[in-house]
Amino acid sequence: MGASAIREILKVVAQPGMISLAGGIPAPESFPLELMGMLTETVLSRFGATALQYDRTEGFAPLQAALVDLLAARGIQADADSVLITSGSQGTLDSIAKLLIAPGDAIAVEAPTYLGALQAFSPYEPSYQTLKTDDDGLIPESLEDVLTHTRVKFVYLVPTFQNPTGRSLPVSRRRRIAALIQRHDALLVEDDPYSELRYRGQPLPSLKSMAPEHVVYTSTLSKVLAPGLRIGFVLAPEPIARWLVIAKQGVDLHTSTFCQALAAEYITGGHLDRHLPKILAFYRPRQEAMLAALEEYFPPEFHWSRPDGGMFIWAEGPEGLDTDALAGECIRRRVAYVPGKYFYPHAGQGLAAMRLNYTMSEPQTIRGALKIVAEVFREAPRPA
Amino acid sequence: MGASAIREILKVVAQPGMISLAGGIPAPESFPLELMGMLTETVLSRFGATALQYDRTEGFAPLQAALVDLLAARGIQADADSVLITSGSQGTLDSIAKLLIAPGDAIAVEAPTYLGALQAFSPYEPSYQTLKTDDDGLIPESLEDVLTHTRVKFVYLVPTFQNPTGRSLPVSRRRRIAALIQRHDALLVEDDPYSELRYRGQPLPSLKSMAPEHVVYTSTLSKVLAPGLRIGFVLAPEPIARWLVIAKQGVDLHTSTFCQALAAEYITGGHLDRHLPKILAFYRPRQEAMLAALEEYFPPEFHWSRPDGGMFIWAEGPEGLDTDALAGECIRRRVAYVPGKYFYPHAGQGLAAMRLNYTMSEPQTIRGALKIVAEVFREAPRPA
Repeated sequence: MGASAIREILKVVAQPGMISLAGGIPAPESFPLELMGMLTETVLSRFGATALQYDRTEGFAPLQAALVDLLAARGIQADADSVLITSGSQGTLDSIAKLLIAPGDAIAVEAPTYLGALQAFSPYEPSYQTLKTDDDGLIPESLEDVLTHTRVKFVYLVPTFQNPTGRSLPVSRRRRIAALIQRHDALLVEDDPYSELRYRGQPLPSLKSMAPEHVVYTSTLSKVLAPGLRIGFVLAPEPIARWLVIAKQGVDLHTSTFCQALAAEYITGGHLDRHLPKILAFYRPRQEAMLAALEEYFPPEFHWSRPDGGMFIWAEGPEGLDTDALAGECIRRRVAYVPGKYFYPHAGQGLAAMRLNYTMSEPQTIRGALKIVAEVFREAPRPA
Repeated sequence: MGASAIREILKVVAQPGMISLAGGIPAPESFPLELMGMLTETVLSRFGATALQYDRTEGFAPLQAALVDLLAARGIQADADSVLITSGSQGTLDSIAKLLIAPGDAIAVEAPTYLGALQAFSPYEPSYQTLKTDDDGLIPESLEDVLTHTRVKFVYLVPTFQNPTGRSLPVSRRRRIAALIQRHDALLVEDDPYSELRYRGQPLPSLKSMAPEHVVYTSTLSKVLAPGLRIGFVLAPEPIARWLVIAKQGVDLHTSTFCQALAAEYITGGHLDRHLPKILAFYRPRQEAMLAALEEYFPPEFHWSRPDGGMFIWAEGPEGLDTDALAGECIRRRVAYVPGKYFYPHAGQGLAAMRLNYTMSEPQTIRGALKIVAEVFREAPRPA
């Protein structure tokens, strides 16, 4: 198990005066801070000591019930009993890997994919099959090719506003992928932390809603409430659901009852529905500023994603550009991003790409930062 | 990985009208419920959005600092940076097992020992070396014998108010055990959830204070604040401390920032010091009632522990008594306990013993329950 490359970058960017486009975290201004006192009062009067006591591993029943409605709004049918509450999605990815991966087993991931997932899976020593992607995300033919030739333990996807690219799979591709997974009787892990962060356009149906028996669906309240509460949730077919409960028993017995009770009240009290538009109104101008600055400053040979939501934009430069080598010069000029290569399980890919986060800086700051990055890239020596 | 035997018993005892001496959890009346609103207010005004944000894996710095003082009061020297905050002790035991046990590796545990530890260790398939115990806990000669003949990955002990026996190691044995661990350059995991629950007598020094480089010390706020916040802490020698951080990164990134902030304020605001005497005053009469009822009702051939604190008493009947077989009849008469055999890693031990918990019932209820258990035992057929 290796220490995280991104964590090392984040240490550097914590320096004063640094503009970080490298992070992947929500803005503290997006948290419903002013609600927390009231939520605490309601939780204590409604649940009393129960909110401070040990609880079932599966989850605090009122939160499980609240999430049934939230999932229904995403087109996913679930019984309250089948919603497993987790201490954030990271633990779910770790448990799935622990349960399913023996050293050398094949698993399939998009290239590029979420770095935290690679970090969760890699200690269990899988062999990675990478799936090709384009501006619309995973290319179904690439998945078909892998499923036809390799027995994979599972496929891992972030279908909506993917980290690191911000890309979303169109409905037609979702249908095709769901059908492929069913036809090959494969298992797919659908990681969905960002779908509620939609600034434009219509919601997309989850893969879980299309192939419920073949999809482990994992999501989180980190982006719509607060990450510091560490509340995730997962919906898995049997026997995986039962195994996840047993694995969680051994790891933390259960997720903080108090945090679960606060989250339940946040949803059932209507606070999520009222607060989410504020989060979107807060992030939308930041994303628009980043897209406009890319248009204005970046050289014409660059290509970038134009997501309808989420927290990231993925920019790719011309072949020969080395974003990892240029990250140092950008940091000297007080701007940080994450070089693209860290999001690939195999070396040599994503060298000219980078992940840009827009949730943590104001529009004007984002503009200035991208101007600097563009300057560094223009000044970089090019291969002949 | 198997489902928990105790969890199955606890499902039965959740039936209305059942008196449970089977649990191992704090009484909800012991929680500082009336403080939670104020703690929340203080946390929000002092830390603001930081209390809801992602945080370092190692722990929320103000809680790490607060625990330095708490540890000092237990005779343990620690830097704030070296105190790792965990989501309860269960995860620490899981991580230690994950890091250190390869299938077949020997580890040494007391017989009987904490069931949750066996559940955390067993999925990693260790070979258990059992250590002999008497009324004063682990017999040092038994440890010496094991360390001399077997290379164990670690020794696991609950030195104070042990679960399931309530026994505490006297200072002289602690010194001897610390010296043995050092001489054999062995690693010892000291699990210390109960030492603050002392109703009589003087505090005992931790093994960590005697052999700091050879002991992983793990503790929790579950018994002195509330288990529902899921706050544990661990102090380990290098490189284990660093490995534990990396393992935790993969499992839950970090423990709930909000719960950590509440815990920090609970300690630094002086609330723990003021609230702990109330917890002790609440449990002491329950323990005294149980000891008195054992004296009054149990047959003279029974033997039981007389702990100065903690949550459990261990009662042993005459050879031939089968507490597991009689548990069913006790449950029919609405009293539950945990049969002794579940606390041993190997079958055939503890058959005549049982763990009795006194934190969850009122003194008069405990009296009535033990009267029933004694009746069932008297009526039981004995081997000729």
